[in-house]
Amino acid sequence: MKIFSKHQIQKALDLSKVIDCIEQGFVIYSSHKAMIPPVATLHFDNPPGDCHIKYGYAKEGKYYVIKVASGFHQNPLQGISAGNGMMLLFDKATGMPISILLDEGYLTDLRTAAAGAISAKYLAPKNLSCIGIVGTGTQAHFQIRFLSFVTDCRNVMIWGRDPSKAEIFSKHPDLRDFKIHVVKDLNQLTAECNLIVTTTSSSSPLLSAHQIRTGTHITAVGADDIGKHELDPKIFLKADRIVVDSFNQCSLFGDTAHALKSGHIQKCQLLELGQIIIDPTLGRTSEHQITIADLTGVAIQDLQIAIAAYESLSA
Amino acid sequence: MKIFSKHQIQKALDLSKVIDCIEQGFVIYSSHKAMIPPVATLHFDNPPGDCHIKYGYAKEGKYYVIKVASGFHQNPLQGISAGNGMMLLFDKATGMPISILLDEGYLTDLRTAAAGAISAKYLAPKNLSCIGIVGTGTQAHFQIRFLSFVTDCRNVMIWGRDPSKAEIFSKHPDLRDFKIHVVKDLNQLTAECNLIVTTTSSSSPLLSAHQIRTGTHITAVGADDIGKHELDPKIFLKADRIVVDSFNQCSLFGDTAHALKSGHIQKCQLLELGQIIIDPTLGRTSEHQITIADLTGVAIQDLQIAIAAYESLSA
Repeated sequence: MKIFSKHQIQKALDLSKVIDCIEQGFVIYSSHKAMIPPVATLHFDNPPGDCHIKYGYAKEGKYYVIKVASGFHQNPLQGISAGNGMMLLFDKATGMPISILLDEGYLTDLRTAAAGAISAKYLAPKNLSCIGIVGTGTQAHFQIRFLSFVTDCRNVMIWGRDPSKAEIFSKHPDLRDFKIHVVKDLNQLTAECNLIVTTTSSSSPLLSAHQIRTGTHITAVGADDIGKHELDPKIFLKADRIVVDSFNQCSLFGDTAHALKSGHIQKCQLLELGQIIIDPTLGRTSEHQITIADLTGVAIQDLQIAIAAYESLSA
Repeated sequence: MKIFSKHQIQKALDLSKVIDCIEQGFVIYSSHKAMIPPVATLHFDNPPGDCHIKYGYAKEGKYYVIKVASGFHQNPLQGISAGNGMMLLFDKATGMPISILLDEGYLTDLRTAAAGAISAKYLAPKNLSCIGIVGTGTQAHFQIRFLSFVTDCRNVMIWGRDPSKAEIFSKHPDLRDFKIHVVKDLNQLTAECNLIVTTTSSSSPLLSAHQIRTGTHITAVGADDIGKHELDPKIFLKADRIVVDSFNQCSLFGDTAHALKSGHIQKCQLLELGQIIIDPTLGRTSEHQITIADLTGVAIQDLQIAIAAYESLSA
């Protein structure tokens, strides 16, 4: 049984290979070739925090994964990262542990950003004017980096509740290939960007329906738990395609669940990202459509990236 | 973050201290001072196996635990133990991992056996003639050892489907303080033992109602998942006290769930082990009563033993 640190994982795993393995994971998942039970969750009050346990396996695969990811948003006050976690990889034939990846949430960040890039690859308009990023956290950072694998657009507009954080964010050396413009008004971002990625832990909608222009694709990755909410449910009324990473999860929590609950949309309108990858004609068919991808994070992504990391580390 | 092996854990943890911490755990649990969500489970077909993830925290405690335990019953054909697992201990204020206990299922075995001993302490008749053990696996072994902390009785009768395994079992050096008698007929065991512990992974009842004499206590620890079943539901009709480790879990799976489903008993007849510890007058009140303790294994036990092991290892 091998144990690896975040540093070892960062050194070994080639980011350019992550998108392919996550894409393959969504195909396995939407082909009903994976066993992914409901997410197990712990909530904490004092201080506030949550911990998600995502777990499952591909029926034809060799491993099962148990992924632990926590978020304690007051940690930065103590100089500690808000996110943490690890991935455990087991032999599906014996239950023997194969590897513990002490990634501290890094692999969760990557597989989430990879799903955002895959959503853009299949759903965003071909001609991107500008990428709009809502939020200034780690996930916002990786969404931008992973989008570079699927689009040539390097214009980015970023909005955060704290403008000073947005300024610091925009100067990160790993984002030097992008022209990043910090905006104080979300209206400016929605007016100029036709690919918008929301990455916050907001509990009330940040984007309103009237702000969304035709020809826009929105990827929402922030609302991954009950109580989180980034998109006004009325945006769903304007959408020509509503794509989710998982029917099961997105019916329970996240922005799609809010829109279903309020009656703005019906379950039959939803498509899974894996279905779009299998048959891209189900996705965007004109530059003028509005499309939404709501991503809550599925254990198949954890399985795929844990295997990719383990195999890179063992090579 | 500290990682410990099974060997280190075995060396550091004093078995005589386990019962107290598990007893305290049941009190916390039945006082509604713990947050224990439903068990997360993975089932496997080929080869058959299962993996349980139990997780939670005491509201007033410093840690949360995530425990992984697997059972792959064909493993011994390859010379590998059927059970495996690990316990992860996290800081409840930050989500930071504190310790990984690579116990390979050892701590799960101990906390399960400790719960059996606690059940006997509060529910078994005072004068034990003989302890009857159904099953010859690791759990049978630890049940006997832990019973030595709560009773002076050293007479044991053991029954297993494979009599040769029972013979080997009875000669284990750690059980040398016991007079162990292997029986081929369960009727002999039920006729002579007034404390019976069932420890199998049977999917159909092994003990029938007509076999159970007045003045018997039965602890059933084997049926910890859907599909497992050790006691004829009619035994519950004869019981003066039906004690469960967890109302929630025992309503979903295990022998009590079968008896509830078949209508032999009602939920209002159940008591939790923690309630009996808090008020022992709720338990056995005469030597002639029949009592049952149905134990499915609760995350509070995992939390308590993980903390005990971690603190022993760090002392």
